[in-house]
Amino acid sequence: MTVNLKNFLNPKIKMSKMGEFQELQPIDGLEISSVSADLYGDGRDDLSLFYFQDGANFAALYTTSKITSASINWNLKIKRHFIKALLVNTKNANTYTGIKGAQGLKEVAQTLAKALTLKLSQSPKGASEIVKITDLLFASTGVIGEDFPHVKIKNRISELVKKLKVDQNKYVWFKTASAIMTTDTRPKLAYEECKIGNKLVKISGIAKGSGMIAPNMATMLSFIFTDANIPSIFLKAILRKVATTTFNAITVDSDTSTNDMVGIFATGRAKNSKIYNVLDPKLQDFEKALHRLTLNLAKQIVVDGEGAKKFITVKVIGARSTTMAKNIGFSIANSPLFKTAIAGEDPNWGRIVMAIGKSGENVTPNKIQIKIGDHLVAEQSKKAKDYKESDIKEYMQWGSINVEVNLNIGNASFTVYTCDFTHDYIDINADYRN
Amino acid sequence: MTVNLKNFLNPKIKMSKMGEFQELQPIDGLEISSVSADLYGDGRDDLSLFYFQDGANFAALYTTSKITSASINWNLKIKRHFIKALLVNTKNANTYTGIKGAQGLKEVAQTLAKALTLKLSQSPKGASEIVKITDLLFASTGVIGEDFPHVKIKNRISELVKKLKVDQNKYVWFKTASAIMTTDTRPKLAYEECKIGNKLVKISGIAKGSGMIAPNMATMLSFIFTDANIPSIFLKAILRKVATTTFNAITVDSDTSTNDMVGIFATGRAKNSKIYNVLDPKLQDFEKALHRLTLNLAKQIVVDGEGAKKFITVKVIGARSTTMAKNIGFSIANSPLFKTAIAGEDPNWGRIVMAIGKSGENVTPNKIQIKIGDHLVAEQSKKAKDYKESDIKEYMQWGSINVEVNLNIGNASFTVYTCDFTHDYIDINADYRN
Repeated sequence: MTVNLKNFLNPKIKMSKMGEFQELQPIDGLEISSVSADLYGDGRDDLSLFYFQDGANFAALYTTSKITSASINWNLKIKRHFIKALLVNTKNANTYTGIKGAQGLKEVAQTLAKALTLKLSQSPKGASEIVKITDLLFASTGVIGEDFPHVKIKNRISELVKKLKVDQNKYVWFKTASAIMTTDTRPKLAYEECKIGNKLVKISGIAKGSGMIAPNMATMLSFIFTDANIPSIFLKAILRKVATTTFNAITVDSDTSTNDMVGIFATGRAKNSKIYNVLDPKLQDFEKALHRLTLNLAKQIVVDGEGAKKFITVKVIGARSTTMAKNIGFSIANSPLFKTAIAGEDPNWGRIVMAIGKSGENVTPNKIQIKIGDHLVAEQSKKAKDYKESDIKEYMQWGSINVEVNLNIGNASFTVYTCDFTHDYIDINADYRN
Repeated sequence: MTVNLKNFLNPKIKMSKMGEFQELQPIDGLEISSVSADLYGDGRDDLSLFYFQDGANFAALYTTSKITSASINWNLKIKRHFIKALLVNTKNANTYTGIKGAQGLKEVAQTLAKALTLKLSQSPKGASEIVKITDLLFASTGVIGEDFPHVKIKNRISELVKKLKVDQNKYVWFKTASAIMTTDTRPKLAYEECKIGNKLVKISGIAKGSGMIAPNMATMLSFIFTDANIPSIFLKAILRKVATTTFNAITVDSDTSTNDMVGIFATGRAKNSKIYNVLDPKLQDFEKALHRLTLNLAKQIVVDGEGAKKFITVKVIGARSTTMAKNIGFSIANSPLFKTAIAGEDPNWGRIVMAIGKSGENVTPNKIQIKIGDHLVAEQSKKAKDYKESDIKEYMQWGSINVEVNLNIGNASFTVYTCDFTHDYIDINADYRN
């Protein structure tokens, strides 16, 4: 059922083959629902609730922007590492909405806490537990500076809670991943399994992305659910580590959002033996699985970059440091001139040279080797001897383009994923709000 | 004859009115010619020569890119501050052309030095003077990584020298400014006069720009000629100072070229009294005139940004430091999402908020005030009270858009000039080389 990730790297596979979806598995201890609060005015789902029956350990990474959404501000104030539910709305970012936006969010939280407490009281276990507003996390994505529609959202809370389902078949996951979309053209889903000790552990993740994706997870939401039993502090360490080479290695247009959030939530129902140490070898498999899953989601976000027609992998090797490799990788991947050349299937590798130069990193021009696909295009500060433009033109017709820059001055490397820059990007963004 | 620079800042003046040209004056001691070396294959002028009868003091600023053209490398090796001629070619950047590119340039220099020595020997003064290759400067602009066409260029040198003219009427300047263009749609020219002591001093400047313009003068060439008598070391100080708020305050697409050069050449023929000190009050007028001229050229470059339909002025005030104001200004001006919103005439001011946030500067969101034109759109972390979308939509139809961000945390300010991001940018750059 897994989309073969190698497809992303195989130039023989055209872009259209990437539209497949993984079948996500239910996560024990999680309930999901999504409804429409009619924020878009067309009845599409725009509100999603993730509820953890016995609570969940969690860890989250947030935008590095200095101006953040009321929802991010809310989450940052939650100092505990165990929560009951996550509510996500689209269409409205609840950013630059002043005190009213923060107050509106608080009202939504109060309504949600009450509705979940009521739900608990009706459960077989009885009414002993009370859900507090500090048990709740929030995520918002959409237009900045519009009044937060807290009344519309509050009015849908009771139905949202009523609709919560343990049953998470692939359609439920598909519906939920669709409900968090904005300009995305398709939902992003990924699934992985691994073992912790002798227990099978499931990881189901969804994401939204599209425009405004830049280093540090711009306008990106991703929520990852697992039944693993892992303390929040270790979840945080692992999430931060895998994000470095996945969510933080992608860029669509170099812009960074005020609302980004990547969260992982662990219900513990897999009942694996307790983890006392982040270096516990039992966690290795989990870390690998989480890396595969987040890389998969990150690539899906790039593939669905606004107006994107081509998936681009920029690998910088032979650098003096990872920072150097990363700076050069992003300098290339963020260059509008490079991205438009890829869109035009024009092997204008001079623009790669330009982007390496403007990175400000102290490279040795004579040592740099540049490859497009398997074709060496430049070395020793000039066009490669066997450069054949027709070969590269042919290669550039594929949907997935690999660029490799070998600086030949060290052993560090970094890979950045991006997409091309097309007419459609302009169309989508010139009048995004209508 | 001067284009009224206020036009650029007046929203009542539509873009189409900006296509006027200044009438440049001849600079005493300078001779100019341009010919076609058929580098484009269509006979257009692509080679320009600027010759100084008695030599000229000069100062230049070059790209900050770590990978530079053979022509830039050549110029950087010239340690003297007095030269005889400047040769400019378009179509080929002579960058990433290996040792062959550097050798080709040397052959061109030898041919040119010989031709100019011959010219001198035929002049009334006689043959006593010899032009050396170290008396020559070069500038190239065009595609990176293509073999430098030194033979084609060498073959045109003798005609180029033969055609040198003292007579620089407006048509000669127009022809020359056109000969240094690449994707520019119109030549860029500016003229200023000032007094140094009791002497009238003339300054005639030309430039080329278009795409790849970013902070630090990306793919920009500008050559400024004056009859002032100013030592090179003072020219350098003044040029560097005025460039900070002119050539280094513009951006088209955030990319930086390998070939940028801004040079000022002073023949001394105005015979103003000798300047012994860069702080000499006699230089104040000159500095102001040079600032007006470079700002004018810088704005012309932005107006002619690839595919640009609108001129945008981003003014950041109330910052803690100039660096802070500059970083935020460029974060806004380089944001593809901001630039596409302007192209779409969509008052999506949330993208200005996003760009302020992603700059990484420590702002106080509650204190920020954002204006589009004269309309306050946001303050106190929310939409302004009197915000009226229809007013701003109407304003955004003009060809020149002003954005002002007041951080209200200090007294420093910086103004950045840029253009919108349109379909045509993609068209021009997707297949630039053909």
